[in-house]
Amino acid sequence: MDKNQIAETFKNIQDHICQALEKADGKGVFQEDLWDRAEGGGGRTRILTHGQVIEKGGVAFSAVHGPTPEKILQKLGLKKADFFATGVSIVIHPESPMVPIIHMNIRYFEMSDGTYWFGGGIDLTPHYIDAEDAAHFHQAVKNTCDAFDPAFYPKFKKWADDYFYIRHRQETRGVGGIFFDRLVATDEMPFERLFEFVQSIGTLFPKVYTHLMQKNKDLPYGENEKAWQQLRRGRYVEFNLVWDAGTKFGLDTNGRTESILMSMPPLAKWTYMHEAAPGTAEAFTLAHLKKDINWI
Amino acid sequence: MDKNQIAETFKNIQDHICQALEKADGKGVFQEDLWDRAEGGGGRTRILTHGQVIEKGGVAFSAVHGPTPEKILQKLGLKKADFFATGVSIVIHPESPMVPIIHMNIRYFEMSDGTYWFGGGIDLTPHYIDAEDAAHFHQAVKNTCDAFDPAFYPKFKKWADDYFYIRHRQETRGVGGIFFDRLVATDEMPFERLFEFVQSIGTLFPKVYTHLMQKNKDLPYGENEKAWQQLRRGRYVEFNLVWDAGTKFGLDTNGRTESILMSMPPLAKWTYMHEAAPGTAEAFTLAHLKKDINWI
Repeated sequence: MDKNQIAETFKNIQDHICQALEKADGKGVFQEDLWDRAEGGGGRTRILTHGQVIEKGGVAFSAVHGPTPEKILQKLGLKKADFFATGVSIVIHPESPMVPIIHMNIRYFEMSDGTYWFGGGIDLTPHYIDAEDAAHFHQAVKNTCDAFDPAFYPKFKKWADDYFYIRHRQETRGVGGIFFDRLVATDEMPFERLFEFVQSIGTLFPKVYTHLMQKNKDLPYGENEKAWQQLRRGRYVEFNLVWDAGTKFGLDTNGRTESILMSMPPLAKWTYMHEAAPGTAEAFTLAHLKKDINWI
Repeated sequence: MDKNQIAETFKNIQDHICQALEKADGKGVFQEDLWDRAEGGGGRTRILTHGQVIEKGGVAFSAVHGPTPEKILQKLGLKKADFFATGVSIVIHPESPMVPIIHMNIRYFEMSDGTYWFGGGIDLTPHYIDAEDAAHFHQAVKNTCDAFDPAFYPKFKKWADDYFYIRHRQETRGVGGIFFDRLVATDEMPFERLFEFVQSIGTLFPKVYTHLMQKNKDLPYGENEKAWQQLRRGRYVEFNLVWDAGTKFGLDTNGRTESILMSMPPLAKWTYMHEAAPGTAEAFTLAHLKKDINWI
């Protein structure tokens, strides 16, 4: 299993996910942009807009290589080295405020000095938190993790709570999920098995999200819920542009801007000092944008 | 002239600006929030929403003090010190896409070790660039600068081009203006005179912006222009959350989030790979979001 096989597998996962999302949406079709990176490699960015359920969704694959950006070298305390990075990244903004936003990412990074790691995550951002949906989502993620290592879910769930956190709002981005980075093989978890774990997060994504699409897409909503959705999307923007390490790194190192910012919502709103009225579904949601909630 | 007198003067400038904007708007009224900072000081944040011309505008005054945040100490290579910072900050998002967004900031910073400086800036972000308006704006700014030092405008204009730059888009935020920081007194420009310069930027703001409001507020526009406005507001969000040093610093150091993010537009849009058709006013605008244009 070498880096090119990993990239090929990720490509197949992208294909699989796009097919599943198109089928569940029933109307939208992904448009593909192929792009090259001047320093080496490139990607396939796929965007679906104005679907029946998905207002704007991006499923991106990339495999890039070349001299390691100075910022990474500094972080790792390394001198010159070449790097290779491949991954699949997804953000889906649904039309209905009753369907949650979701994000998924799996990635592999390797350097010419032999350093490598896997990373990834999946997290759910409901505009309206539904405890049952959150439990379903976390249970599915936990089951996937448990098949590999029972220590994964508790560790990666906490990591997600800490990572997907809008510090300046003291709010989590949503109900969390898992986040992991710099995973390397061990005696108990050889490289191939670790890669299988990462793949299993990729294949979990369409299963769990199409379920949430189907379950919620026909729920009624009105202007009030649409306005709330736009406010929550504003928070999503704040997280991604201020705190998300991947976005920051991409924009800092001259990545492909339109692929990095495919995570931006179609329409977002900011209202000064907006407050949710007590007892409303909005207030319930705000009260549950907290770390360390055991959703299961 | 001590720091408290500077803060008082800034407060008066805030009052003056709010009055002028309310008068020019003809409908909107500023709502005021007084806030305290746990570590010392506080502010008066004033927001006008749903005016006739202004959709969302913020004019904020603050005067804060206390132990200097670690981040500033590191930057200055200092150990422990107390700081005092006061300023007026403004961002106006008009209802009409034919009226430009504007930003103005004046500030004074002082530390217990005697270090101090003035900073500030004013820059214009038209949704549609109008060369005549840009020239009028720059000429007014230049005249204000020239009354103090003919070297100011060229230097601070270039500084603004470099500062108000959306690096990941390779676009300027708008047509620029001036930006300056860490200004200290010299033999030719004593402290009092420097402070007068900073004040003159504060009083220039309502003059130049109410002119642009009046001139453009009745221009016709339709859905196409509204959609473009929302896209340009998306870029404004990107600049403020990714690159603006003041915003980043505020969010990093636990500032008052709602006051810092009063600069966010009411509604912003992101469209993947949006392109302006050749020959349109949108394409003209994009072609002029460049550094080093001499607008006068």
